[in-house]
Amino acid sequence: MAIETLISVDVNKKPDKQPVPLHNRWHPDVPAVKTVEPGAEFRIECLDWTGGQVKNDDSANDILNIDLNQVHYLSGPVAVKNAQPGDLLVVDILNIGPLENSQWGFTGIFAKENGGGFLTDYYPKACKAIWDFEGIYATSRHIDGVRFAGLTHPGLIGTAPSHELLKRWTKREQALIDTNPHRIPPLALPPEPKEALAGLMKDKERFGREGARTVAPRENGGNCDIKNLTRGSRAYFPVYVDGGNLSMGDLHFSQGDGEISFCGAIEMAGWLELKVDVIKNGMKQYGITSPIFETSPIEPHYYKHLVFEGISVDDKDKQYYLDAHIAYRRSILNAIEYLKKFGYTGEQAYIILSTAPVEGRINGITDIPNCCTTVSVPTEIFDFDLTPSKNGPTKKNRGDVARTT
Amino acid sequence: MAIETLISVDVNKKPDKQPVPLHNRWHPDVPAVKTVEPGAEFRIECLDWTGGQVKNDDSANDILNIDLNQVHYLSGPVAVKNAQPGDLLVVDILNIGPLENSQWGFTGIFAKENGGGFLTDYYPKACKAIWDFEGIYATSRHIDGVRFAGLTHPGLIGTAPSHELLKRWTKREQALIDTNPHRIPPLALPPEPKEALAGLMKDKERFGREGARTVAPRENGGNCDIKNLTRGSRAYFPVYVDGGNLSMGDLHFSQGDGEISFCGAIEMAGWLELKVDVIKNGMKQYGITSPIFETSPIEPHYYKHLVFEGISVDDKDKQYYLDAHIAYRRSILNAIEYLKKFGYTGEQAYIILSTAPVEGRINGITDIPNCCTTVSVPTEIFDFDLTPSKNGPTKKNRGDVARTT
Amino acid sequence: MAIETLISVDVNKKPDKQPVPLHNRWHPDVPAVKTVEPGAEFRIECLDWTGGQVKNDDSANDILNIDLNQVHYLSGPVAVKNAQPGDLLVVDILNIGPLENSQWGFTGIFAKENGGGFLTDYYPKACKAIWDFEGIYATSRHIDGVRFAGLTHPGLIGTAPSHELLKRWTKREQALIDTNPHRIPPLALPPEPKEALAGLMKDKERFGREGARTVAPRENGGNCDIKNLTRGSRAYFPVYVDGGNLSMGDLHFSQGDGEISFCGAIEMAGWLELKVDVIKNGMKQYGITSPIFETSPIEPHYYKHLVFEGISVDDKDKQYYLDAHIAYRRSILNAIEYLKKFGYTGEQAYIILSTAPVEGRINGITDIPNCCTTVSVPTEIFDFDLTPSKNGPTKKNRGDVARTT
Amino acid sequence: MAIETLISVDVNKKPDKQPVPLHNRWHPDVPAVKTVEPGAEFRIECLDWTGGQVKNDDSANDILNIDLNQVHYLSGPVAVKNAQPGDLLVVDILNIGPLENSQWGFTGIFAKENGGGFLTDYYPKACKAIWDFEGIYATSRHIDGVRFAGLTHPGLIGTAPSHELLKRWTKREQALIDTNPHRIPPLALPPEPKEALAGLMKDKERFGREGARTVAPRENGGNCDIKNLTRGSRAYFPVYVDGGNLSMGDLHFSQGDGEISFCGAIEMAGWLELKVDVIKNGMKQYGITSPIFETSPIEPHYYKHLVFEGISVDDKDKQYYLDAHIAYRRSILNAIEYLKKFGYTGEQAYIILSTAPVEGRINGITDIPNCCTTVSVPTEIFDFDLTPSKNGPTKKNRGDVARTT
Repeated sequence: MAIETLISVDVNKKPDKQPVPLHNRWHPDVPAVKTVEPGAEFRIECLDWTGGQVKNDDSANDILNIDLNQVHYLSGPVAVKNAQPGDLLVVDILNIGPLENSQWGFTGIFAKENGGGFLTDYYPKACKAIWDFEGIYATSRHIDGVRFAGLTHPGLIGTAPSHELLKRWTKREQALIDTNPHRIPPLALPPEPKEALAGLMKDKERFGREGARTVAPRENGGNCDIKNLTRGSRAYFPVYVDGGNLSMGDLHFSQGDGEISFCGAIEMAGWLELKVDVIKNGMKQYGITSPIFETSPIEPHYYKHLVFEGISVDDKDKQYYLDAHIAYRRSILNAIEYLKKFGYTGEQAYIILSTAPVEGRINGITDIPNCCTTVSVPTEIFDFDLTPSKNGPTKKNRGDVARTT
Repeated sequence: MAIETLISVDVNKKPDKQPVPLHNRWHPDVPAVKTVEPGAEFRIECLDWTGGQVKNDDSANDILNIDLNQVHYLSGPVAVKNAQPGDLLVVDILNIGPLENSQWGFTGIFAKENGGGFLTDYYPKACKAIWDFEGIYATSRHIDGVRFAGLTHPGLIGTAPSHELLKRWTKREQALIDTNPHRIPPLALPPEPKEALAGLMKDKERFGREGARTVAPRENGGNCDIKNLTRGSRAYFPVYVDGGNLSMGDLHFSQGDGEISFCGAIEMAGWLELKVDVIKNGMKQYGITSPIFETSPIEPHYYKHLVFEGISVDDKDKQYYLDAHIAYRRSILNAIEYLKKFGYTGEQAYIILSTAPVEGRINGITDIPNCCTTVSVPTEIFDFDLTPSKNGPTKKNRGDVARTT
Repeated sequence: MAIETLISVDVNKKPDKQPVPLHNRWHPDVPAVKTVEPGAEFRIECLDWTGGQVKNDDSANDILNIDLNQVHYLSGPVAVKNAQPGDLLVVDILNIGPLENSQWGFTGIFAKENGGGFLTDYYPKACKAIWDFEGIYATSRHIDGVRFAGLTHPGLIGTAPSHELLKRWTKREQALIDTNPHRIPPLALPPEPKEALAGLMKDKERFGREGARTVAPRENGGNCDIKNLTRGSRAYFPVYVDGGNLSMGDLHFSQGDGEISFCGAIEMAGWLELKVDVIKNGMKQYGITSPIFETSPIEPHYYKHLVFEGISVDDKDKQYYLDAHIAYRRSILNAIEYLKKFGYTGEQAYIILSTAPVEGRINGITDIPNCCTTVSVPTEIFDFDLTPSKNGPTKKNRGDVARTT
Repeated sequence: MAIETLISVDVNKKPDKQPVPLHNRWHPDVPAVKTVEPGAEFRIECLDWTGGQVKNDDSANDILNIDLNQVHYLSGPVAVKNAQPGDLLVVDILNIGPLENSQWGFTGIFAKENGGGFLTDYYPKACKAIWDFEGIYATSRHIDGVRFAGLTHPGLIGTAPSHELLKRWTKREQALIDTNPHRIPPLALPPEPKEALAGLMKDKERFGREGARTVAPRENGGNCDIKNLTRGSRAYFPVYVDGGNLSMGDLHFSQGDGEISFCGAIEMAGWLELKVDVIKNGMKQYGITSPIFETSPIEPHYYKHLVFEGISVDDKDKQYYLDAHIAYRRSILNAIEYLKKFGYTGEQAYIILSTAPVEGRINGITDIPNCCTTVSVPTEIFDFDLTPSKNGPTKKNRGDVARTT
């Protein structure tokens, strides 16, 4: 009558000393650490994505010096009997939460030279915010006046790629890197043997040389950072290897659409309860080549959002053609300028938009030459009135993020 | 006790024969057709965006031959006393609906040579669907099995630009056009005297020569195509000229995020009830340079969405760098392939995603090199079960769109 | 392409001078004023339930002197071809709204001697509030600080009773009256020839003598005052006579659960758009002896409710056995006392709870001897913070209702 | 960084052998087992309300023979420093769930001679259903075709009464009992020394003789069975004794409004995370004499409810005066008859309505003589289409509840 914990973690131990071996690259030859029947329910624990590199303190030095070769530490793979290439792996996210002895999380803005982020040209320096969890709610001692219900989800979950798929990934991403190989931050991350952790795979050299980095989401799911893949949702993953081989990590207590500051969710160590099943030959039957999912009935519902528009013109008035990336950056920058009028620093505002359940939408993608995007901020998460009024904004000191020392 | 209709239209007359003159370009010198006090409530009627070029029939020839120089026909401007540059114009969308004698709308996929759309490389031929309105619901004789509550909104609403702003628009858009001036479809639309309709502006030659085209959304709002700017919402527009000079048109009975087929909403002739007010010096007080708005408490709520992921890799496996446009196209194409398994033609599926209240989200925009986007389809709008099952999809003939003859 | 108006009303004419005859009693022999096909869509206009007795002014004398023999003025009946006793009449509430030239409504607290209400022992005097409609929103010059989206619905809609059913109604209600025939207000309303309006029924004497009063909801639907039967919902009515013979009236711009002040919704003259269909033999197939309905996707959604508990102990500390009526009265009284701390008069608070989209729930009905009920008040409808805080409530003058003179 | 567990329970031990003493009556002199500061967050564990009398098996004999003198076993009281009579105790329900080693719950229909329930005259025999928890969802091997997200909440939570309040309770309830002292089931429950468990109170004889039974909700909160007091909500309790002395138990994985079968929720052993604070003099400042609470942003949201009306006429056609109890019973009976057409037994339907997140509303309470109530059933919880159609209901065998042997 208790749910079985298939994989445990110990936050007081290094990632390579965990009770069940973790891995941090995608590779078809990583053996499953556990095998379950279709219909099985079980619990999986995960370290935070950095494996404990970031501390619950008031200095951002750990963010500045973070070793990104390590990320993301994944629990798994879990194999499901009878799952074969071409099938769909049905994964119910039954529940999710922080580890009981670790009721906190962190958000980082990475330095431009070490990771960067969506606004790295505007906010190039490392800083961070620590969040405390109060049941379903999060608050931060580094950001006053905001409290919200988390839309808790795994930032990263996916099936193992086939050899063929892995080769395609490596090839196409290298082609992009080759267009500007010395860019900072880089355009993409090639395989990197340093700090590669191979799980149960014996040939660690090949794992490090071939394994795909985990930062990018791909056809197997992976680091999709979809906030709505929350407790109560059901995902369908393409199966590329026997058993499906599901891995997961990068748990987020909450995140805004875009996860804009890159280490941009409320990152935490935690657990997932999953139920798995198989739809035979589902990829072909349903024409599926990327994961799909069904939403949950218990997403937080807010009454009112304040919505900021953005168009695909940059801040030097350069016009782009239907560029949703540029437009969304404008939406975000517009929202940050607005929040600053209430007393937040730019970094605080950046982190609020990165972590709270804000919605980032592509509203018009055909009105040449301007893409129109919006970012929608739920007003109820603030303990003051965020909407415009004839009295002007209520500006006050709202603390600050942790900086480097 | 009755709300005053400031501007009427007659759908049986040509756009240039309307009782109150319309306009179809943005220009600071178009005089207001009406002036109201702050706090005023009033009703405005609008033609459909094409001015009646599309008919309620079963041939797409009108779509094929549409004259895009004419669009969008706008009602207004309405000036608000005391509104001055630097202020915010507060606009409550109190209500909105189709004209009583025009309970239908249309959606077009434009030909690649005449308008195009988000998937014009995949669906280059003109076609259309006609929708019938049943109160808050829409159904189409050209698309079986789908019925939904409209998220009715003005596709286009905005304040008049200043001369300075107009010049910036013209300059930056021409610079884009100059990078590929003969592209089909074009990168942007330069001023075009042909079919320009100047409202009350006397110097029609200058209007046509200088007036900005209405297709692009810009810093004044305009053609933002934001479905959530629906009845019950409140918008705040920057004021760039005395009176603010609010114009509007392109009413949509419903639209999905992205308005992907370009003539992609359920386009209709209709009316708006508005209430206006002014926040003095609001642009500076709140740091606002683009419109913002507050959402409505009566957006339709659906229980479950089926969500399709997309990444910034095109269908030739070319990798793009955090390109939300490419990713969203993949999300849409994935959704279309799925819908086809239930018997829809590609064009039907394209139109469903363009018109139903689907949500298009930017989920991860920092996970190099892949942007992850999703399109979320409410499952309750279909009269069959859209979710995957072990039995496979229920495929049947679901009619077809209107084609050219 | 326009929806047909089957029944028009003229608010400037008396109820008995309307273009299509109205009726104000239930009787099987009232002939249908219109007959439609299954699948038909049409529009029906209705007077307010009192037929125009209440004026848009600042005196409650009209409420004091109201003639309740007249109510409710109903439009109809509309017959549906092929509908026969035992069938279910499917009625889509496609849309609903106030008449265009009548953008206001009223709420009355009736005098104890002439109508009464849920709290008539606490608030025995006549008073009223006038509401102005701003699109989907209502505000009142008699109640400051509150504005809400209406959950607009027909307070009264139902099919005609059979002769047999009518006799049962008369018999059982008379039996109740006989237990205390001189009570003020009365326990129930027997047939009353005075002011009876018979529609197209020729034998007006019999109509007045036999016709069931419209105040009570019954097995045919009728005056159910269910706020969630709003635009977008679909109802299923038992059919008791050939054609079903659907009548309706008592349109409400908004109402709280319970409609506690009796004339307790925002009463208005308005229109309905309906679509009708028939499920043959549906009563038996589905075991239905009272109406059922499906809710709408566009009910207003609020983020937070403040909820007031009540138990079945009256204010003299008398204990009742699982009495939901007593418990709900306590919930309401508790909410009124709370609202008074913010500056509302008791009558204002009573009317807010009667009109705003508050939810009245039976929470525990088995915990002997106390029934527990709650009334839930959406906090976003107030322009101040309604929740408790360490600073105490913000008390200020919030105007007052209209009183008798 | 971990939340402290103030009170643990062990489901393998008897209620009177728990590590922290429990109590099962309300009495002002039960000493607090723990004292916390205002602002404290902590976790409390609770046995199920019966203290483990009901087993996870397929016989209802345990329900038949249940000892109701024992209920409800409460954890606490917890005192809050500085809380004094007249204050408000602010209690955030931060989170709630089943014990990790006890992922199941039960629902019972009690025998008429031993407990009864809302429909005890219709379903007088003991039976039960066992539910399995899958994260946020519940399913039952005794009821096929239904699965829903729990609206998990404490059925019972409240502050200790003062001596004066306790005397009022005893007096008024005895007065009710005296009107029909031998009724089965009884009208109310007087103090009962048998099986009384006194927590840390030394004078156990006085505790048993004076302590108020826990079944009734009262001015201190207590057994309110309000499903919406769920994770994320915030309650305000009147303080009647120094420290407030908060006790709780009777955790429900899910419950429908009314908790109609009495043991009518999905009863479970579980834990609560709470945060407490004090508003000094809050009872007088806000006019509060019963608990109030604020709702949560993460209540499950369903798209469509099927709603069953009921009026205050019983099934012998006897008319009652605005009796919400009678009306709600009719609503429930109507819903049961409907569900039976799809193959459920009456007991299964009764339990579905008692446990699923159905809403029970008082819709019209002034339309003499009929109160109108509704019960709203979310249609998405069924794996078949619950709405009426021309094809009739899909009837099939859906298993059955556990019966006595």
